[in-house]
Amino acid sequence: MEEKKMVSEITSMDEDFAQWYTDVVKKAELIGYTSVKGCMVIKPAGFAIWELIRGQLDERFKETGVENVYLPMFIPESLLQKEKDHVEGFAPEVAWVTHGGLQPLQERLCVRPTSETLFCDFYKDDVHSYRDLPRVYNQWCSVVRWEKETRPFLRSREFLWQEGHTAHATAEEAEECTIRMLNLYADFCEQVLAIPVIKGRKTDKEKFAGAVATYTIEALMHDGKALQSGTSHNFGDGFARAFGIQFADKDNTLKYVHQTSWGMTTRLIGAIIMVHGDNEGLVLPPKVAPVQVCVIPIQQKKEGILDKAYELRDRLKKVCRVKVDDSEKTPGWKFAEAEMRGYPLRLEIGPKDMEAGKCVLCRRDTREKTEVMLEDLEETVTKLLETIQRDMLERARAHRDRHTSLAVNMAEFEKIFNEKTGFVKAMWCGRQECEDIIKEKLSVTSRCIPFEQEHIADTCVCCGKPAAKMVYWGKAY
Amino acid sequence: MEEKKMVSEITSMDEDFAQWYTDVVKKAELIGYTSVKGCMVIKPAGFAIWELIRGQLDERFKETGVENVYLPMFIPESLLQKEKDHVEGFAPEVAWVTHGGLQPLQERLCVRPTSETLFCDFYKDDVHSYRDLPRVYNQWCSVVRWEKETRPFLRSREFLWQEGHTAHATAEEAEECTIRMLNLYADFCEQVLAIPVIKGRKTDKEKFAGAVATYTIEALMHDGKALQSGTSHNFGDGFARAFGIQFADKDNTLKYVHQTSWGMTTRLIGAIIMVHGDNEGLVLPPKVAPVQVCVIPIQQKKEGILDKAYELRDRLKKVCRVKVDDSEKTPGWKFAEAEMRGYPLRLEIGPKDMEAGKCVLCRRDTREKTEVMLEDLEETVTKLLETIQRDMLERARAHRDRHTSLAVNMAEFEKIFNEKTGFVKAMWCGRQECEDIIKEKLSVTSRCIPFEQEHIADTCVCCGKPAAKMVYWGKAY
Repeated sequence: MEEKKMVSEITSMDEDFAQWYTDVVKKAELIGYTSVKGCMVIKPAGFAIWELIRGQLDERFKETGVENVYLPMFIPESLLQKEKDHVEGFAPEVAWVTHGGLQPLQERLCVRPTSETLFCDFYKDDVHSYRDLPRVYNQWCSVVRWEKETRPFLRSREFLWQEGHTAHATAEEAEECTIRMLNLYADFCEQVLAIPVIKGRKTDKEKFAGAVATYTIEALMHDGKALQSGTSHNFGDGFARAFGIQFADKDNTLKYVHQTSWGMTTRLIGAIIMVHGDNEGLVLPPKVAPVQVCVIPIQQKKEGILDKAYELRDRLKKVCRVKVDDSEKTPGWKFAEAEMRGYPLRLEIGPKDMEAGKCVLCRRDTREKTEVMLEDLEETVTKLLETIQRDMLERARAHRDRHTSLAVNMAEFEKIFNEKTGFVKAMWCGRQECEDIIKEKLSVTSRCIPFEQEHIADTCVCCGKPAAKMVYWGKAY
Repeated sequence: MEEKKMVSEITSMDEDFAQWYTDVVKKAELIGYTSVKGCMVIKPAGFAIWELIRGQLDERFKETGVENVYLPMFIPESLLQKEKDHVEGFAPEVAWVTHGGLQPLQERLCVRPTSETLFCDFYKDDVHSYRDLPRVYNQWCSVVRWEKETRPFLRSREFLWQEGHTAHATAEEAEECTIRMLNLYADFCEQVLAIPVIKGRKTDKEKFAGAVATYTIEALMHDGKALQSGTSHNFGDGFARAFGIQFADKDNTLKYVHQTSWGMTTRLIGAIIMVHGDNEGLVLPPKVAPVQVCVIPIQQKKEGILDKAYELRDRLKKVCRVKVDDSEKTPGWKFAEAEMRGYPLRLEIGPKDMEAGKCVLCRRDTREKTEVMLEDLEETVTKLLETIQRDMLERARAHRDRHTSLAVNMAEFEKIFNEKTGFVKAMWCGRQECEDIIKEKLSVTSRCIPFEQEHIADTCVCCGKPAAKMVYWGKAY
């Protein structure tokens, strides 16, 4: 059967998770390829998810007073070099423009890998007085990092993101902003993407180039690997000193501003796929599903069926995003396609249903079917979408908890990662040496020092010296 | 007085229109500068206008079935070269990336000046059958053109835009799409931006590199110069042949697709400034005003005044975009600032108004003041915003009509442009020679061959040979 064939073309996730991911991304028509190596095309089904992410995240930003701006995509080399740690972190992976039109440039420009230096260059002339602070600016744009190995959504040479860049009068305000944005990210992931996250601080080894502190949210994928899903950095006054961003404070003295930056990217689409997907394809949380209900007419050539399908669509339009699949394909094919694309609800309507004044709703996440009287349709759909959203978060949380272990020494640590992947909570002395050893021996990195600390042991899991912090460890994308 | 000073810092538009424009752009805080030559920062007040343009234009796109996508920003040199006319048009003004990370690239990449070649490269593998057509894709992104002389919004090395790229089974469908999008643009300019436009076709001399036909909407600025405000191109099957984009048609033969592209840019913000602005600054049409009503409390330190201002804001929030200026500045300063920023309505509320249960509304476009009973506030504001939107379009139309003349020979043509600028309608024989002569003698270009033709004379305004078409001519930005 045709519909079987379509589904069977996806590799099973237990057999080869990486191949399953690639298959889903392709069969659900999220991305396409061009001749541009390491870059991808985000096709309509993929971009519509990004539009829903962007819209809802932007709304949350604006509620907290964030203002959107747009800065140039080019950074003169001398500007990139102003902050020492920052240039060391990014220079090896930027694309360089050397010619404009037919002429060589006097100074080469890199395509922004991130825009700290541009925002600093801008704030330097735009901020004069404490009255100009805080500046809480954000931009939605694409950035470029010259990666060697790329994977759709997870790592590509160009990707879409938002980058917030703020300037504050005091260190306290900057720290407060860094944490506020991290909390906003965590809440967004849980409430909108149905992805539970661990909030914490990066170790010095893992922090952003130029930051005093990097905070992160870490999510666990279905295969047990971790995905850094959003970061928020506190720069202190380091960039301000490098760029000379000073303001006249209330006490009439010149002071340096304190800065932060924070970002989330199209990588979130990769997270949605790897947290919620299954062997039939994509499973979208209702809040980011471009189509929430797909109406599939059964025996659509029979009189009245298609009209009924359109009528139900028009009714449902008022409460959700809905479409009718009125193509010439068989219902079986349409079912498989709707599953592949991850639509949260499928609505089946055939001659018998119509006669009985009802229809069938089938949940994508559980495959559960419900018969619904047509007069209750809007109410049932609204409730079901809410239930699916909630259940998906709970299932993801349960999966993560099942894949989170404790280790008190290297033997335990090793044993866990020989058997499975996941998060491991273990104590750490605070020295980079131990992180390096753990990475070398187990290919595992520190994901974060979680805000919610637990006391698991008195000693470092690696060296046995007194422990300073509990850390989440994992293999990461 | 402080507030006078702020206003007097703008050059009068009659004295020096170009300087007036620069002053408005800067004092209304639409743009800022960085060290990146020829590029600009779009500040919050400017970007908020772009967000309103983008949102409303995108909504209209989606109503006609347009789907959004995202394609890479880089174009390999070999890809740019595939269509001969296209590369000739764009190669002299692109930025070239020659290094990725620390390595020189095997093939250099240009930063997209426009994405026809990328869409073709993508459609080549994505379109197989007539069932895959039409493809009506659009992307919102930035593009780069290495301009020598730049002006904020009007011409910069990087600018924001949308670019639609479509593929169709037949020539008729492609032409139909080209015209549909042009009409959508014209309607958007008139209904949303309050800018009347002339719809027509570009002469061969002025058409897009690689197009069979370019259609345009042309607007007249306050200084009498024309601004090309949106274009829609029909490519026939030229690109399809160059890139090999074929599909199996219903009759089972392989055919080339027919393609179109169409775009509008941040240049529209320049048009809004130059069509509606006055000597007090920006004047925003309500539909693209980030703040539609600015509430200014008078004697705000008096008890109850600020609370009343907030109460009115909270009521108005339900019907419009509103803010309270509760800063420490004097009311006079606030008035001047609200005018500079172009807020359509200013609401004044002071102790006497409060006592009388009323407030004062002042229109930005006409300066007209109205006393309003507070109980009628929402209704009055809603109606006034609609009136302002309509009146602004009518005023712009009247201005354009006053600055549109007829010429039947070169003497008349010359006389008009010696006295003033504006649109001139004149007959044309259809030969590029005459366009060249007119450009050389009068610094005037053909703006478009309007869809609404008029018979002004039998002969070409330049050579006196039989006329083929009536053309709009003008000096252009």
